[in-house]
Amino acid sequence: MIEQGAPRRRGRPRGGTDSRERIIAAAVDEFGEQGYEASTVRAIAARAGVDSALVHHYFGTKADLFAEVVGIPMRPDIDVPGILNGPRELVGERVVRYVLEAFEKPDVRRRGVVLIRTAIGSRLTTPLLAGFLSRELIGRIARTLDVDDAELRATLVASQIAGLLVARYVIKLPALAAASVDELVTRVGPTVQRYLFG
Amino acid sequence: MIEQGAPRRRGRPRGGTDSRERIIAAAVDEFGEQGYEASTVRAIAARAGVDSALVHHYFGTKADLFAEVVGIPMRPDIDVPGILNGPRELVGERVVRYVLEAFEKPDVRRRGVVLIRTAIGSRLTTPLLAGFLSRELIGRIARTLDVDDAELRATLVASQIAGLLVARYVIKLPALAAASVDELVTRVGPTVQRYLFG
Repeated sequence: MIEQGAPRRRGRPRGGTDSRERIIAAAVDEFGEQGYEASTVRAIAARAGVDSALVHHYFGTKADLFAEVVGIPMRPDIDVPGILNGPRELVGERVVRYVLEAFEKPDVRRRGVVLIRTAIGSRLTTPLLAGFLSRELIGRIARTLDVDDAELRATLVASQIAGLLVARYVIKLPALAAASVDELVTRVGPTVQRYLFG
Repeated sequence: MIEQGAPRRRGRPRGGTDSRERIIAAAVDEFGEQGYEASTVRAIAARAGVDSALVHHYFGTKADLFAEVVGIPMRPDIDVPGILNGPRELVGERVVRYVLEAFEKPDVRRRGVVLIRTAIGSRLTTPLLAGFLSRELIGRIARTLDVDDAELRATLVASQIAGLLVARYVIKLPALAAASVDELVTRVGPTVQRYLFG
């Protein structure tokens, strides 16, 4: 069933709230069954009984739809290219500062901790977040590096950032929970820098 | 109720299986309610209606009892002092190799992944593991460093090791899951070294 042939940015598309909810439900099913990387907007649209264009109209890209469905509180896939484009010798510090400054905002932290708990605690959701991180974050960083071991380098960065978030905001190990953002940028920035360019 | 006045290494103490099970049940309650650091063998013994000496007889130290109750598959609190005592310039590599070689054993990995999932996924068990790590691992490392910021240094090491285990064995990010132990020792060892001594 085709509800609309092309995305319209103005005016209320036919279907309205009902289509929007059907798309979200279809996305949950598709991502859950296929994982992030194998899921397509076309298949989600088919499950919801709408045209792909309506999905793009309401939610943007596959990454946007995933972020909406999963409740991702920040969008590293969108922000990281800008961080990588600045002065190269400070990329490590900028990556650490970007993540920590986001998590210092109560709303981002609250939703981020729930997401980390769910993604690591649940056998079902782990591969879903892994697929998103691999494709939208690690893949993007790796492509800017232009070396043979780019994916391993980018994944090592992800491991340190994940460990930092878990230790500071989830497990709340005292010395890390008490440290300032500036202190942690100074300590952890060079690790990220070395993984990327060392 | 005092079942026994002093630990006996030979012969079956009075109480037997029944006391052992009561001690484990009491330890689960005590650790769960008080957290690791505030729990005492004396309080666990009182809950179980046995003498502290019987707890030590069956289970050893508080850390031993905790490891038994929680199902910790490796004992960094026991092994790490030896790792720190070797040649100082290679401590970072030895720490990473110790953790990865343990997790390459299927039994350790299986139980370790369950423990990581539970500790991070559940709001109730997170503080419990945090208390154990702070006291028995980070505290021990920090005391060997003899600098003002020793606890932060040791906690940063814990963050990278936790992130490495989560990324390689729980989320299984492809490039990290595929890398050899030697490769990861070379890449991550210098991070641990710098956090400790840099």
